[in-house]
Amino acid sequence: MDTTAQASPASETDGGTWRFPSSQPLRLDSGAVLQPLEVAYKTYGRLNTEKSNAVLVCHALTLDQHLASTHPTTGKPGWWSRVVGPGLPLDPDRYFIICANVVGGCMGTTGPGSTDPATGEPYGLAFPVITIADMVRAQAMLVQALGIDTLFAVIGGSMGGMQVLQWAADYPGKLFSAVCIAAAARHSAQNIAFHEVGRQAIMADPDWRGGAYEKLGVRPEKGLAVARMAAHITYLSETALQRKFGRELQRDSLSWGFDADFQVESYLRHQGTSFVDRFDANSYLYITRALDYFDLAGEHGGVLAQAFVPARSVRFCVLSFSSDWLYSTAESRDIVRALNAAGCRASFVEIETDKGHDAFFLDEPQLDATLRGFFDATAQARGIA
Amino acid sequence: MDTTAQASPASETDGGTWRFPSSQPLRLDSGAVLQPLEVAYKTYGRLNTEKSNAVLVCHALTLDQHLASTHPTTGKPGWWSRVVGPGLPLDPDRYFIICANVVGGCMGTTGPGSTDPATGEPYGLAFPVITIADMVRAQAMLVQALGIDTLFAVIGGSMGGMQVLQWAADYPGKLFSAVCIAAAARHSAQNIAFHEVGRQAIMADPDWRGGAYEKLGVRPEKGLAVARMAAHITYLSETALQRKFGRELQRDSLSWGFDADFQVESYLRHQGTSFVDRFDANSYLYITRALDYFDLAGEHGGVLAQAFVPARSVRFCVLSFSSDWLYSTAESRDIVRALNAAGCRASFVEIETDKGHDAFFLDEPQLDATLRGFFDATAQARGIA
Repeated sequence: MDTTAQASPASETDGGTWRFPSSQPLRLDSGAVLQPLEVAYKTYGRLNTEKSNAVLVCHALTLDQHLASTHPTTGKPGWWSRVVGPGLPLDPDRYFIICANVVGGCMGTTGPGSTDPATGEPYGLAFPVITIADMVRAQAMLVQALGIDTLFAVIGGSMGGMQVLQWAADYPGKLFSAVCIAAAARHSAQNIAFHEVGRQAIMADPDWRGGAYEKLGVRPEKGLAVARMAAHITYLSETALQRKFGRELQRDSLSWGFDADFQVESYLRHQGTSFVDRFDANSYLYITRALDYFDLAGEHGGVLAQAFVPARSVRFCVLSFSSDWLYSTAESRDIVRALNAAGCRASFVEIETDKGHDAFFLDEPQLDATLRGFFDATAQARGIA
Repeated sequence: MDTTAQASPASETDGGTWRFPSSQPLRLDSGAVLQPLEVAYKTYGRLNTEKSNAVLVCHALTLDQHLASTHPTTGKPGWWSRVVGPGLPLDPDRYFIICANVVGGCMGTTGPGSTDPATGEPYGLAFPVITIADMVRAQAMLVQALGIDTLFAVIGGSMGGMQVLQWAADYPGKLFSAVCIAAAARHSAQNIAFHEVGRQAIMADPDWRGGAYEKLGVRPEKGLAVARMAAHITYLSETALQRKFGRELQRDSLSWGFDADFQVESYLRHQGTSFVDRFDANSYLYITRALDYFDLAGEHGGVLAQAFVPARSVRFCVLSFSSDWLYSTAESRDIVRALNAAGCRASFVEIETDKGHDAFFLDEPQLDATLRGFFDATAQARGIA
């Protein structure tokens, strides 16, 4: 075991890798079992003596546990540095904030790039298919290992929001509040379609090698870059793309060729090529699959409200962005309707913005204000100073 | 020259390949010159003695001249068999209907797969970049070669609609009417972004070989299939995808793997694999580039209305589909506003449908009715029996 991680949090920014012994396997929805399980995580702030101030942040598809501290690969600030930090809505002086890399990921938690104990080689496609519920189950193991019975809040955007909903359905007694941002209770046909394009792009790359690229010392970088490019378009609104790039050229005139003539092409190519430096192709396959499999109502007899009935004591906040066409406001409304039908207390805010889906981690003052208001009121109810 | 083609149309369904001699080159917007130029086309019906009943249909990105007769590769009915045929809005008993494969295409008209006279080998990337205006210029050469001074109508959907607008701007004196369906006067940043994903998918395929695959006896089929899959999503509305597929499975239960679990995955994979049988990867690069370069206002000092000022005598009909998010109703409205500002006569219909962009060649009775009404009234004005 990693002794750094086992020590109780003692500094402003901490974390490590929790290595669960084989006696504590992760039992997956597929029926498979992951052991040993490792969960890489970061923490910010300190757990108070009442252990009442813990906030779990669930990350989105291509993000990770580096929430508010420098990313070890890119050297860039954490992806939610705008929200998590002193004086910000999630202030480490007030809350003990945890973020763990999801199961199937590539930033330290057990995933397809980890060593398969059965072979001593990277799992590759021998890694079992995982679900959002599996990700949440691993997080619950970590939270328990950290000595926390009840989370003050679980919060996340996009796939993080789906984990929030799954937490509410599976561990309602361990939550005081839940904040679901720009998410949906299931993946639509169009969502699945875009993911399938990405997966086919990866699998079409001859360097993918049936998923066994790692032990062969190659990487399907071109395929992964194309997957990222296709997905990235869905993260931005058409308005945002048009405002940001329009038909602006890279140079003074057209090249009359296939170089990146338009700024939007150059931007998209950069999104693709920089992504492969920080992400793993097989992780992309597994996590997109988990998203496609996600259907919370499906797990509860087709009635979404049934998922939330045990969560009547949880305080919910649901947020959507008006220009998000990946997980639209209509899908957030479906969640809120189900929460209402289940008798849960839920507030809902649609934030007017033209930034599209990615607004949840961009400069969006209305989001910050909404989160601040919700957390202040909820912290008061919880008796957090 | 192809003597079949040179003979005046004498049967219900005719056509061939018009081979322009080197003395009649196609001068391109890039400054390059294509010679010899071949234009493959189909005709339906007979040109009347007044030569007043000719209708030119302009095809979309991945379609071709096989409008209303069996496709030679797929064996399927022509792509507009619902609109072109006896008793249909474009009736060959009344009109002489022409459809030509665009320059840059892969169904017989000169394109990147044609022989480069400079080398005796397929052009590949030595083929010059072409524009929508170049496509229209080649069509105008064909129309003139067929002995037609004025077209009764030019009509097209999607990229076909862009050619219609370009015809109105460049050859207003040769048009009696113009019907622009589900198009836009320029490619937006999002449009360019989706095309760039497709191009990168093709170029990432090692079998693309820098565009020289043909002479090496390989084809970048996987890359082209991914490009098609990404584009195909934009042709359908989210509602249509959801209604058609939802989260329906291919089999009774999930595979817990990366087979096509969902029907929408299987459908999309089929779209990709069947596309490569009838389309060429380099043609896809060149035609998407032509679309991205399209900006009719840009050609006229940034003022779209200026493009249409010489077309005041042309009768315009502009059609859009309410659920089209590729070229939305808002973009058709921009066209109509410019036509109005230029003093053109234009009727505009937004057709309520949830079928998305591809509605222009799907079962859409309101489209048929609108076309029938427009053509009947316009034919009367033109004195066509």
